[in-house]
Amino acid sequence: MKIDLDRYRIRPGKRPDLGRRDSANTQGLDKQDDREKVEEQIAEYQERLRALQERLYAEGKQSLLVVLQAMDAAGKDSTVKHVLGGMNPNNVRVWSFKTPTKVELSHDFLWRVHKHAPGAGYVGVFNRSHYEDVLIVKVHGWVDKDTIERRYDHINHFEELLADGGTRVVKIMLHVSKEYQLGRFRRRLRKPEKHWKFNPADLTERALWNEYQDAFEIALKKTSTEAAPWFVIPSEERWFRNLAISQLLVKTLEEMDPQFPAPDFDPAAYPPEGIE
Amino acid sequence: MKIDLDRYRIRPGKRPDLGRRDSANTQGLDKQDDREKVEEQIAEYQERLRALQERLYAEGKQSLLVVLQAMDAAGKDSTVKHVLGGMNPNNVRVWSFKTPTKVELSHDFLWRVHKHAPGAGYVGVFNRSHYEDVLIVKVHGWVDKDTIERRYDHINHFEELLADGGTRVVKIMLHVSKEYQLGRFRRRLRKPEKHWKFNPADLTERALWNEYQDAFEIALKKTSTEAAPWFVIPSEERWFRNLAISQLLVKTLEEMDPQFPAPDFDPAAYPPEGIE
Repeated sequence: MKIDLDRYRIRPGKRPDLGRRDSANTQGLDKQDDREKVEEQIAEYQERLRALQERLYAEGKQSLLVVLQAMDAAGKDSTVKHVLGGMNPNNVRVWSFKTPTKVELSHDFLWRVHKHAPGAGYVGVFNRSHYEDVLIVKVHGWVDKDTIERRYDHINHFEELLADGGTRVVKIMLHVSKEYQLGRFRRRLRKPEKHWKFNPADLTERALWNEYQDAFEIALKKTSTEAAPWFVIPSEERWFRNLAISQLLVKTLEEMDPQFPAPDFDPAAYPPEGIE
Repeated sequence: MKIDLDRYRIRPGKRPDLGRRDSANTQGLDKQDDREKVEEQIAEYQERLRALQERLYAEGKQSLLVVLQAMDAAGKDSTVKHVLGGMNPNNVRVWSFKTPTKVELSHDFLWRVHKHAPGAGYVGVFNRSHYEDVLIVKVHGWVDKDTIERRYDHINHFEELLADGGTRVVKIMLHVSKEYQLGRFRRRLRKPEKHWKFNPADLTERALWNEYQDAFEIALKKTSTEAAPWFVIPSEERWFRNLAISQLLVKTLEEMDPQFPAPDFDPAAYPPEGIE
């Protein structure tokens, strides 16, 4: 079972039309009919991810950075839980970027994320990221337009730096519709154990939906590069989202092709005879 | 199915006799006969851990720090993979402490671990820890005896500080025998994909087995406190180890009893009628 991922990849310099991309698309797979096959496939990917992850760690030369961005309630936390939750926590680190602190704001906008770039052998996950600085910040006009324009370049240079040092950068936008978001908000409000995930201020942001979609389209156009491509994943069917992202991560790590290092000793000579 | 965990807890000021503690003990459970029950029980604990973890995160007031120490090849990485691998990576962070860097050595011995103490809502796992500074450092005599003696106090004060700030500290020694270690080394040497986990220098450390056991016994005696107890878990039967540690983590988080916060808005008033 192979998803066509290429259709979700944003070509460098090409502005995606998010409104015309079906956020509930499943490439013909059916939630009921294909359920078993999909679950098996995801389980198989999880196995492969763990195996690739171990090689990545043993090799200690490359790293993978997964950037997750989306509108509120689109499923970032759920993606972390369900897709990355199967990986070995030994060498995965998830960083959730919230409202910047005073100290963070006293530096350039890449300072706080750079600190958490994954080291060799590690998988880093940014749940929100430096892209907030060309999304929420742009939508609210917290910095002037010229500054925003320059930030796209800074982002591209930063991600080139990471790529040059052996980090593969994969950026994922979880794509959902405005109606879908409202449904998720209602669900959070219905369930007392989900109240903590809702904030009345989310509605203020929701009112700016079109401005956000516009900011996303521009950011994706300007920062989807060969070194660090953006993927817009239809995310209303969560099982499909999990399948597509699992496949994307497996494919990326397989391309990176991490290898167990050759031992710098003769394994046949150990342990020496007569050892106690 | 309940393991008696209390027998693994080291009483403050009491020196454990590791040689007399059976590192292959399973409290009467049988690998074959009880396999299914044990697997079910572990799966159930994993579910509960995830649920508790979500509450911990939502509450955002307390944290849990799990310290793992053991002789080489006793199964620290395997414990991370199998016991903590079931948790949501969103709020678990594993830190593996290796040979200190120059910068780390230019500070006091708690500096590098303090940085990685888990924040409110998080579970931190130290795979090796500040205890290396009273284990390997002591065994090799890299610092003088008085310095080691003072370190036990520094450790206790540090862990009191963490406890005082809302962090539960649980310290686990994975207990295995010298024969078991040799078997694991042989296994690593037999499997090419495990060669990277073996280092001929491991045999130098193995030759100091008794010195290490002695250093462990003293460290456990001096630093097992009410606020931050040590548990010596028989770890030769890995399924039993996984069962015991899963139960210990569930029990600890249940005692911490994290609560979903009450919303500071009226959920019934949201979303407002007529919202688009």
